Amino acid sequence: MTRASPAALIPAAVDSSLPLAEALFNNIAAASADGPGVSREPYGAGEQTAVDLLAAAARELKLDIGTDPFGNLYMTLPGRDRMEPAWLVGSHVDSVPCGGNYDGLAGVIAGLTAVAALRRAGIAPPRDVTVMGIRAEELSSWYAGQHDGHIGSRAALGRLPVAELDTAINSRTERSLREHMREAGFDPDGVRPDKPHLDRARFHGYLELHIEQGPVLEDRAIPVGVVTAIRGAARARGCRCIGEYAHSGAVPHEYRADAVMATVELVHELDRDWDRYRAAGRDLVFTVGKLFTDGKVHALTKVPGEARFTIDFRSQDQSLLEDVSGQAQRLAQEIGARRKVRFELGEFSLHRPAVMDTRLRQRLIEGCSTLRVPHIEIPSGAGHDAQDFAHAGYPAAMIFVRNARGSHNPDEAMDIADFALGTKLLTWMLVSE
Amino acid sequence: MTRASPAALIPAAVDSSLPLAEALFNNIAAASADGPGVSREPYGAGEQTAVDLLAAAARELKLDIGTDPFGNLYMTLPGRDRMEPAWLVGSHVDSVPCGGNYDGLAGVIAGLTAVAALRRAGIAPPRDVTVMGIRAEELSSWYAGQHDGHIGSRAALGRLPVAELDTAINSRTERSLREHMREAGFDPDGVRPDKPHLDRARFHGYLELHIEQGPVLEDRAIPVGVVTAIRGAARARGCRCIGEYAHSGAVPHEYRADAVMATVELVHELDRDWDRYRAAGRDLVFTVGKLFTDGKVHALTKVPGEARFTIDFRSQDQSLLEDVSGQAQRLAQEIGARRKVRFELGEFSLHRPAVMDTRLRQRLIEGCSTLRVPHIEIPSGAGHDAQDFAHAGYPAAMIFVRNARGSHNPDEAMDIADFALGTKLLTWMLVSE
Repeated sequence: MTRASPAALIPAAVDSSLPLAEALFNNIAAASADGPGVSREPYGAGEQTAVDLLAAAARELKLDIGTDPFGNLYMTLPGRDRMEPAWLVGSHVDSVPCGGNYDGLAGVIAGLTAVAALRRAGIAPPRDVTVMGIRAEELSSWYAGQHDGHIGSRAALGRLPVAELDTAINSRTERSLREHMREAGFDPDGVRPDKPHLDRARFHGYLELHIEQGPVLEDRAIPVGVVTAIRGAARARGCRCIGEYAHSGAVPHEYRADAVMATVELVHELDRDWDRYRAAGRDLVFTVGKLFTDGKVHALTKVPGEARFTIDFRSQDQSLLEDVSGQAQRLAQEIGARRKVRFELGEFSLHRPAVMDTRLRQRLIEGCSTLRVPHIEIPSGAGHDAQDFAHAGYPAAMIFVRNARGSHNPDEAMDIADFALGTKLLTWMLVSE
Repeated sequence: MTRASPAALIPAAVDSSLPLAEALFNNIAAASADGPGVSREPYGAGEQTAVDLLAAAARELKLDIGTDPFGNLYMTLPGRDRMEPAWLVGSHVDSVPCGGNYDGLAGVIAGLTAVAALRRAGIAPPRDVTVMGIRAEELSSWYAGQHDGHIGSRAALGRLPVAELDTAINSRTERSLREHMREAGFDPDGVRPDKPHLDRARFHGYLELHIEQGPVLEDRAIPVGVVTAIRGAARARGCRCIGEYAHSGAVPHEYRADAVMATVELVHELDRDWDRYRAAGRDLVFTVGKLFTDGKVHALTKVPGEARFTIDFRSQDQSLLEDVSGQAQRLAQEIGARRKVRFELGEFSLHRPAVMDTRLRQRLIEGCSTLRVPHIEIPSGAGHDAQDFAHAGYPAAMIFVRNARGSHNPDEAMDIADFALGTKLLTWMLVSE
């Protein structure tokens, strides 16, 4: 039996499989439509419908279909050597409320499209390829309480603390994740940090295609990004500055303990630090998403006695996150003492960055060259299931696809031609090793 | 008939009249008690009771008693030459809700105590002394809508725009000032900017004793302040900064239009300008009493797309108020352009400073020397009826009395010994010219 170079066959095979991708995008969007967007609540009806439609497509492709106690879907194309550790190609099936159709779903459909293309081209990959439709990545948009999101991947990896099943509370029903997971037909008791469902030894690496959630690719007119790392975060959710309320006209400067003036100095100083880090080429973003005086007490003519705010630092570089959160604490101390106010930033919660596997990144760049896909390297500011695989010791890599109008909204806009380029790159990876 | 030097008789005469003052403070506090403080609503029961008790005391002192269409109370001690323009000694009778007993009332009782002391010492002042119990100075604490407060003094001076009678809306009843004034038995139709009730030619000058509402006298251990000027204000009540909401992790610096970072830069820059003006000895206070992102939209992980805030500049120096509000507009423009956001500060409303009469201030300082009253010169950051008299062309002066815990709260704490010192100074003025 003769074989053409697999790489040469991939572009046409993926293009021929695009109708499958488009049908899946359309059918799942229609089945989970909610106003102008889609709603695929974790362990809810929209997510389940999407999983069902994906499984049906996998059956048509005659893939091996499996699941786990948490409802994640596994769809496997056998490789030439079934004893070799398999590729895992995943992303999530759920969405934010009234969100866009591509965030998450694009990665699962890209995986299915890749295996469909391999089938169509008659290419058996060197090892099994398992496409994973992951549940409940967007939990933070649906559940309040103490939890870190990314339920499906962390549960499968044995990285979900059992306590989160009870501390994650559905914002609509006020019932726990445990109850909702059980009600959806799955097994919260299967959450066993001592006994992961996925066996690290059985897998070669984890690949995830995802739309870019920022504007960089769109702005630079580049269809594909090779992700360098998923930024970690250092966050303080409940910062306070406590001063003293006073008459805005009658109290001179030297007697004031002005919570707003102290807070704007702190935030502006941190913003200037950010300028310096950027100038030095360090990866950092810094956001104060909430900042507010007390609406029940504040007034035009009152020196404000309190301000509340949040801090969100993100970086690929964990030591920088530690530096800037330490710097925030020191500055708060210094400004507080000088301005006679007290800052309470609380402890920063640290989410470690997830560096993508160097060798796989290099491979992806080779693939772009081979396939002539315009690309740049780019960090991911948002969190992804890939970070959980990286933290669990899997070589992990991500492909970003250009997307015009941000994510987590119904206006996200991925061009199917860009999706095709990303999927070709993914398919190339699956046959490259 | 022999006469001792009037100045020499004043201290003992005021001390002997203090029981009258204390009885009035106590009786009016009891009659207008509201929880831990007092409530004397403009054109409400508490204010009326206070006016009644003051009028009763004036009758006992055999003063001439008069009123005007707005319910202000006039209590006159005849002078040696009744054809000479009279001294007007006033302050307000009303209070903020659940406020302190001394803010305003101390000035009216000081006037009555002064004329009681003159009666007791057998001193006929050179000219009539009219003590004025003014209504509705604190309107801003009770009435929303468009108005500038200080109703009683402005109405009597012909400086109250008729429109405010209808645009000032009682926050509790949602009915207009006009209705409440009429219901209290007075005549809103008497508000005639063309025909002031008070005839400028009939008065020599306006004197007002008031507790200090800031901490300066208390902090410096000085019982009396001679007011240099009542600060004017330049205010922007509805400032907005409009940027663009975005993902806090995925959107790099160069693509952000961050409303909070722009706003903190603006406020901090204005704060630094304030430092420079203070270093140069210029009189200025600067307050951002409200600053808030949108509670319905903001999030830890969103670049904030909007911030709202207020600006309150106060100064004795009108040209400085014009400079700093112009500077705020220019900075907002510059920062907005650089940071890709749009500031809408709106028009600054300008309240002119009221400079106290130079000659009367000098006189008060002479009186302090004569009476050995420890004193400093001090600006007033809060507004007072005296500013309306100054703006109406009356020579006006103010005496501040030390007060420990701010005003507009039940904890204000004026020592009766400090009140006595201020009243001696006031009495000295009434016989000095």
